[in-house]
Amino acid sequence: MGSRIGVGLLGLGTVGGGVASILLSPDERHPLVADLDLVRVAVRDLARPRPVDLAADILTTDPGDVVNDPAVDVVVEVIGGIEPARSLILQAISSGKSVVTANKAVIARHGQEIAEAAAAAGVYVLIEAAVGGGIPIIEPLKQSLGGNRINRVSGIINGTTNYILTRMADEGAAYDAVLRDAQDLGYAEADPAADVDGLDAADKIAILSTLAFGGAVERSAVPTEGISQLQGVDVDYARRLGYGVKLLAVAERMAETGDPLPLSLRVQPTLVPTDHPLAGVNGVNNAILVEGDPIGRVMFYGPGAGAGPTASAVVADILNIAGIRHASDAPGHIDPLLAAGTWRNCALVEASKIRQRHYVRFNTKDAPGVIGRIGGCFGDRNVSIQSIVQFNASQAGAEIVVITHEVSQGEMDAALQAIEALPEVSGLAAHLGCL
Amino acid sequence: MGSRIGVGLLGLGTVGGGVASILLSPDERHPLVADLDLVRVAVRDLARPRPVDLAADILTTDPGDVVNDPAVDVVVEVIGGIEPARSLILQAISSGKSVVTANKAVIARHGQEIAEAAAAAGVYVLIEAAVGGGIPIIEPLKQSLGGNRINRVSGIINGTTNYILTRMADEGAAYDAVLRDAQDLGYAEADPAADVDGLDAADKIAILSTLAFGGAVERSAVPTEGISQLQGVDVDYARRLGYGVKLLAVAERMAETGDPLPLSLRVQPTLVPTDHPLAGVNGVNNAILVEGDPIGRVMFYGPGAGAGPTASAVVADILNIAGIRHASDAPGHIDPLLAAGTWRNCALVEASKIRQRHYVRFNTKDAPGVIGRIGGCFGDRNVSIQSIVQFNASQAGAEIVVITHEVSQGEMDAALQAIEALPEVSGLAAHLGCL
Repeated sequence: MGSRIGVGLLGLGTVGGGVASILLSPDERHPLVADLDLVRVAVRDLARPRPVDLAADILTTDPGDVVNDPAVDVVVEVIGGIEPARSLILQAISSGKSVVTANKAVIARHGQEIAEAAAAAGVYVLIEAAVGGGIPIIEPLKQSLGGNRINRVSGIINGTTNYILTRMADEGAAYDAVLRDAQDLGYAEADPAADVDGLDAADKIAILSTLAFGGAVERSAVPTEGISQLQGVDVDYARRLGYGVKLLAVAERMAETGDPLPLSLRVQPTLVPTDHPLAGVNGVNNAILVEGDPIGRVMFYGPGAGAGPTASAVVADILNIAGIRHASDAPGHIDPLLAAGTWRNCALVEASKIRQRHYVRFNTKDAPGVIGRIGGCFGDRNVSIQSIVQFNASQAGAEIVVITHEVSQGEMDAALQAIEALPEVSGLAAHLGCL
Repeated sequence: MGSRIGVGLLGLGTVGGGVASILLSPDERHPLVADLDLVRVAVRDLARPRPVDLAADILTTDPGDVVNDPAVDVVVEVIGGIEPARSLILQAISSGKSVVTANKAVIARHGQEIAEAAAAAGVYVLIEAAVGGGIPIIEPLKQSLGGNRINRVSGIINGTTNYILTRMADEGAAYDAVLRDAQDLGYAEADPAADVDGLDAADKIAILSTLAFGGAVERSAVPTEGISQLQGVDVDYARRLGYGVKLLAVAERMAETGDPLPLSLRVQPTLVPTDHPLAGVNGVNNAILVEGDPIGRVMFYGPGAGAGPTASAVVADILNIAGIRHASDAPGHIDPLLAAGTWRNCALVEASKIRQRHYVRFNTKDAPGVIGRIGGCFGDRNVSIQSIVQFNASQAGAEIVVITHEVSQGEMDAALQAIEALPEVSGLAAHLGCL
């Protein structure tokens, strides 16, 4: 029933600084914050100026000093990346310490190994900060929705791309120009690949899927498409048809059940109807929609990144460990809801079986009957169409935009192949998802 | 470390039936649901047909059988109302049982007494279902936002009134007609007072305020105004000025701090800018916005009522008690985050000190200079105006709508008094809040 909790920090960058700043100013926060002692902090360079005032003797350049310090009860890992983060987390666990991490890359790839080590050691590895920045989403999924059969988790879970898409939509601006601007403003990294190619969102949806469905899937197999190929013209056409374009991450169970449970995961630029709750999520905000039975549909919305929000999530996890320590000091006895171990096998379905609506744009000759022939190709392959619209007809040709009803990827691919073989069609110019 | 949890139900109406139905079909839900045994159920009439199939020997008409049954670990109270709910909850606590309740009325009025009894007995009283239906909001406030200094909690927390307001806005329909329709559809009670007069929302905001700020306020002193006086013309004018009208519940701390911490609570029809996250919350949905430092602004959105969503919240609470039981079987040692005791004194400020923006509509003579004279009265009392617009001028007179910047209720009242004394002004026809 020890009431004080020793916290060790691995990393004192933006998020680490935010965490330290909360721990050092407990006033007006939950009284349990005052029970958290920041006892050891690993930094890369002792001489660098700090955002917070820390006693020199708690700083070290050796992360091993933090994970092995007997005064440290909870290790907070905010250095990011795969290694040495993974090894340090495992080392902390084997020293009997709980871990709080904001590291989606390591959890998406090595979450199972880490969870098993934690279960064996009887400690917690908590990850609220790994998805959705400050938005409480991990904890609600683990502790508030357990009575439900979850059917789908979907959302906007990358702030950088949502900032870019929001500006493309608002200003009619081109992707490249907005990206440069976002880099200047610090919203995008100098190497933006992890964000704009959808890799960060894929890490996060793999994590949410594991929690929602109780089993992990192979992260590297998640179909992932970013926004770097997205053209302004499709954002414009989508708007005219009543949709916004968002980089959407989706994890859903298929209609049939089974062991392993078949799941469809994907990250893809997706048309969202303007009256859908996710359509109004703009700028660097994130939102996650959870659909289940009997709850229906709930959404969690807020700042998806930033020092303050992410630090709020890290401190929430530390507080949960501190709180449960009051209820039990019996080592090895853990709350299975908070620990969130997996409890069934899940597997990704083949890409051809993924079902959704599609948006496609074709460049065509402006020839009579082309809409009919395209429509016919879809119909022949069982692809039912919601709308087919011609834009921008000129001597050079026309653009034809089709929005389908829900179909399998396999049926869609077959139809597209037939359409691209039509003499009037010069090419498939865009292919996006559609809610 | 007992792994099975005996659940006793007080009430088998809509919500109780939903809870029973989840407990009796654990498949595909969190595996901990399978550890919950429904052992005793109190109903009013044994002969009545049930929504779920229950063994006859677990039914009783005496609620005392449930709260005193040694096989019951957790008592679920879903009978509603103040008595006998309050007494049964206290009796369950004194028998050493944890309680899960959806009863906002009893928690808003007797929450302090109940919390003290629970703390003394070392048991939990969990209330996720009391606010926001299925939306996880209580748990995130208690367990995910504790690192923050909360500044404001606001939201749409009554589904019936939001349904009525949504239809008034969409159809330009009158309040009375929509209310009758809502009653026919089962969205409003035959006696709709608790909903349309704002009392239900006031109960809920008092509960959220206690959790957000760590201390209770006097429920009966919360300024509360419902929608029964709201006129369609103001919904229309608001729309033309770029706002929707929502029944908003707000709890916020004042700029200055103190002991007791001064808070402003209110329930009131309020103009919400159309680009505000709360503006898109329609129908029977609810949403709660939490603002704090350093998190910024997070929003929780979903179905605010209904058997399924509310049952989801009740089962979440039971699961949390079951989960923590795995970590500790030491009686009396409780997790202070989950228990959510109060930790400071709070008090409502006088109504005259509440600061917000206002929307007012005056009936006036269509005389030259009347806008100037009204503007002058506001200026003289330090009320700064954002817009002043004349609608509907005719021989009979004109309507003048004013939206102010943020001012205190006291300054606003002084200005209104002066304006109503103007010979050109025949009356104050509407007075709403404004975000």
